[in-house]
Amino acid sequence: MYIEIGNFLNQRLKQAGISHIFGVPGDFNLAYLEQIEADTELQFIGTCNELNGAYAADGYARIQNLSVMVTTYGVGDLSAINGIAGAYSEHIPVVHISGIPPLHAVKNGAQLHHTLLDGNYDHIMNCMKPFTVAQTRLTPENAAYEIDRVLQACLTYKRPIHIQLPSDITHIKIQTPTHPFQYKPYVTEPSYLNTVVHKLKDKLASAQKPTLLIDHLAQKFGFANIIQNISEQYKIPLVSLGTAKNIINEAAPNYLGVYSGASSPTDIKNAVEQSDCLLCIGTQFADVNTAIFSQNIPYQNTILIQPYDVKLNHEYYEGIEATTLLKHIFNIHEQPLENINSEKQAPTHKNSKEPLSNATLWPQISSFLRDGDIVLGEAGCSSSGLNGISLPFKAKYISQPIWGSIGYTLPALVGTLFAQPQARHILFIGDGSLQLTAQEISTIVRYKLKPIIFILNNGGYTIERKILGAEAKYNDIHNWRYTELAHVFYGEAQTFHVETLKELHQTLSTLDTPNQLTLIELKLPKLDAPESLNKFGPIVAQYDYGKHTMSQIKKD
Amino acid sequence: MYIEIGNFLNQRLKQAGISHIFGVPGDFNLAYLEQIEADTELQFIGTCNELNGAYAADGYARIQNLSVMVTTYGVGDLSAINGIAGAYSEHIPVVHISGIPPLHAVKNGAQLHHTLLDGNYDHIMNCMKPFTVAQTRLTPENAAYEIDRVLQACLTYKRPIHIQLPSDITHIKIQTPTHPFQYKPYVTEPSYLNTVVHKLKDKLASAQKPTLLIDHLAQKFGFANIIQNISEQYKIPLVSLGTAKNIINEAAPNYLGVYSGASSPTDIKNAVEQSDCLLCIGTQFADVNTAIFSQNIPYQNTILIQPYDVKLNHEYYEGIEATTLLKHIFNIHEQPLENINSEKQAPTHKNSKEPLSNATLWPQISSFLRDGDIVLGEAGCSSSGLNGISLPFKAKYISQPIWGSIGYTLPALVGTLFAQPQARHILFIGDGSLQLTAQEISTIVRYKLKPIIFILNNGGYTIERKILGAEAKYNDIHNWRYTELAHVFYGEAQTFHVETLKELHQTLSTLDTPNQLTLIELKLPKLDAPESLNKFGPIVAQYDYGKHTMSQIKKD
Repeated sequence: MYIEIGNFLNQRLKQAGISHIFGVPGDFNLAYLEQIEADTELQFIGTCNELNGAYAADGYARIQNLSVMVTTYGVGDLSAINGIAGAYSEHIPVVHISGIPPLHAVKNGAQLHHTLLDGNYDHIMNCMKPFTVAQTRLTPENAAYEIDRVLQACLTYKRPIHIQLPSDITHIKIQTPTHPFQYKPYVTEPSYLNTVVHKLKDKLASAQKPTLLIDHLAQKFGFANIIQNISEQYKIPLVSLGTAKNIINEAAPNYLGVYSGASSPTDIKNAVEQSDCLLCIGTQFADVNTAIFSQNIPYQNTILIQPYDVKLNHEYYEGIEATTLLKHIFNIHEQPLENINSEKQAPTHKNSKEPLSNATLWPQISSFLRDGDIVLGEAGCSSSGLNGISLPFKAKYISQPIWGSIGYTLPALVGTLFAQPQARHILFIGDGSLQLTAQEISTIVRYKLKPIIFILNNGGYTIERKILGAEAKYNDIHNWRYTELAHVFYGEAQTFHVETLKELHQTLSTLDTPNQLTLIELKLPKLDAPESLNKFGPIVAQYDYGKHTMSQIKKD
Repeated sequence: MYIEIGNFLNQRLKQAGISHIFGVPGDFNLAYLEQIEADTELQFIGTCNELNGAYAADGYARIQNLSVMVTTYGVGDLSAINGIAGAYSEHIPVVHISGIPPLHAVKNGAQLHHTLLDGNYDHIMNCMKPFTVAQTRLTPENAAYEIDRVLQACLTYKRPIHIQLPSDITHIKIQTPTHPFQYKPYVTEPSYLNTVVHKLKDKLASAQKPTLLIDHLAQKFGFANIIQNISEQYKIPLVSLGTAKNIINEAAPNYLGVYSGASSPTDIKNAVEQSDCLLCIGTQFADVNTAIFSQNIPYQNTILIQPYDVKLNHEYYEGIEATTLLKHIFNIHEQPLENINSEKQAPTHKNSKEPLSNATLWPQISSFLRDGDIVLGEAGCSSSGLNGISLPFKAKYISQPIWGSIGYTLPALVGTLFAQPQARHILFIGDGSLQLTAQEISTIVRYKLKPIIFILNNGGYTIERKILGAEAKYNDIHNWRYTELAHVFYGEAQTFHVETLKELHQTLSTLDTPNQLTLIELKLPKLDAPESLNKFGPIVAQYDYGKHTMSQIKKD
């Protein structure tokens, strides 16, 4: 059985669950795009540029557990790389396929456009290496094996891979495996697993105050629900890091709340820091989830469980698969979780004519959101505001807290819309961020997608103003007619301008599941931010610039 | 004398001729932006995103011979890198300053946002290395020397440099050199120079049919005019490569035209290929300027003069500075060039109601352009169309023929507008390209800039359609209301829709030097392209995909 390389690649992608491919055409990928277009089970979604395509793929993978984007060599790859790096940083499995020059040109170091004219065809892959877990340059000789290898790596590590597909080989037929692609999860050898299980059981057996501390990797690697089952069944207090927003049910009886180092509420701080057996599960302690490294983890009493390894004091166990480990330690099977939701914060003053502010906005949003929603929160006021309210447990929350690339969420929304078209998708994004990637509203209207987009218009980069330059010109942006964006991109939208609480309440009450794109401009004062940002700004400034710099700036 | 590091950097940049700095704020660069904002001789120009900032800096440097852009670590750097790589590929000296995390965090490998949480702070600089000629991470100990070193490299090689400025050291005062920064051009040691001069003089003396073949590096390194002086004074036929559009006067008596390998007119082909002394000056033979490597250079009779080296048969001379070399060989001084312009191609049918086409558009454009204009041609129909007409010699022409990143010219226009505000700036860009970077029209209206922008609306990526997928969906884009873009970005513009030759003529006749942004939408059929593109498309397809692939595609 012989099959064209590009078609084999598409077959593997479909077997891995893909039905949409994002990207931008360029001469080195057109032959492959022909093969995508000819495939009735795949849809190519052209984004307005490559960075937006990478963000869209990231959003799609957060729902579908895998995504694909296609670029052209050099210009397209480097335009997309920030989106790839973000996916790496945040553990999102994105397959990046780069249409590269024909193999004969690569082999001969031909001086082609989209290169540095230095005959070196390794630059791009070298750049991609830190931001992908596997890379390959396909040839007819290796494609049958390499495609499966890199896909397996992508799904094993939940991180991007980089596939270079030379333009002249996509239509060459190769012999391929007869079995369909199937991801093979890593399995720990039973007696090794058993040793570690016993070790950890002993540790737990002697604990008086065990605590579960969960972070986003538990969700990315699929063991968040198990943790919650454990907490419920064994009544172990459960605490999350701020980077794990909404991955566990915040209304569950044993859930205490968010641990963020020194700024945590006392009960949560004690539960973590005074635990005699702290199970850290999929945790990544970073500046953003520890109030800048103010965590105080009792390492001597900590079991650190990562997707494929375990650490207990100074003992390290590599190759321990977390889900199986947890099931064995606690002798538990994954159970569906009860769908209890937090009581919604009662929005106050809902008929007030007072101007909108972050303090009053987010409680209203809390009551607007519901199970099944896909909610995206852009870096800055939006994600800070959403972090401060409880979301319906069965709403999916998407943000990019670690990589924190502004502009990410609008194209990511394009991805989530294609990944789960039947859901209600709701984006919150500030004006400064929106401007980076605004043209993706064109893709939304092009494909007649129907998200609700809240645009927080506060006249600039408010998150930066909270750190430095509250009144600085460099933090200003040019105002736009945001609600007219759909029109200029030749589409339709229902639009709202909201300046007061009353208007917000009225607007939200008319929205259920809109049958068209909805653009809502929320007018907010330029220095108004969620309380957490107000608090966070000076702490970041202190860390980033130091006392000496801050005193010099004041002097100037 | 002690001065804050950021202020010293700004002092050096100003001494090198800089008065504008492009970029996007982020927490790791705010302390430095404070220093820019406090400097009354520098203006920070915030672009809508970092890639656009890099393109703007590229455009600025093409006029001002140096430019500066500022990003924030990781997210900003990687968003900008495609623009930096383009500047490298095309020999444009851009200073890229990245505000990086505080030095203490870098030294300790702190797990910060905008990183991969791997404690590795070398990834970004490693990525920048292939695309910059010098890199540095500033510290208080090295800044006084490093800044001058990398600036010198930037100006010597006319390529980007990468400066990492940790957020916590910008305000630390350091001892700095007392002399102002001055670029020190490389000087070849006289007796060594003399040896090479004699060698080449001998070769030239015996030549019956010398020819000068000039390319873009001659202009980038400042010896294009000398070449033209030589051609005029010695009556040596002058030929250019296609990548050297408008760097010499195409109306000069000894100028023959463009050499592009097998597709050259016979007289030009003979002048190059049958020369008994071909002087290739600043040439880079690439697919795009040789009709895909169809050049036939008589290497045994070729002297290859590059900015800093010379090759004659198998003899190589490193460290020979080209301008001095040329002046000595020909015993010539740089003379101002006579401003003869080509006779403008008479636009035909100017009152016709026939729909606009590339065949009739460009001759009309030729008569519209004038000395002093800054003309930008986006990759695709725009640059192909402009390459096919003669431009006024004293118009400056800007395109990106080697790197060829679509979307480049609109942000580059922002750069040229700030670099030379008194000129008339005219951009030609296709709809597909415009969509990648369209938000920079916001920057244009924000700063009340007044370019003329021709938007070629042909419903997609026509250059790709000419290569493959003429009717493919992947080459379609969503139509926009292009002339309303200024309005949605809260600005004003005079706008025109042009569908016929008559309308084009009427529109052009009302435009002189507009006192506001002018947006002209040119409606063109989706498969209509300049003749060179029609010819170029199948040749590229043949090279990129090969005969086997093309036959497979036809079969499908």
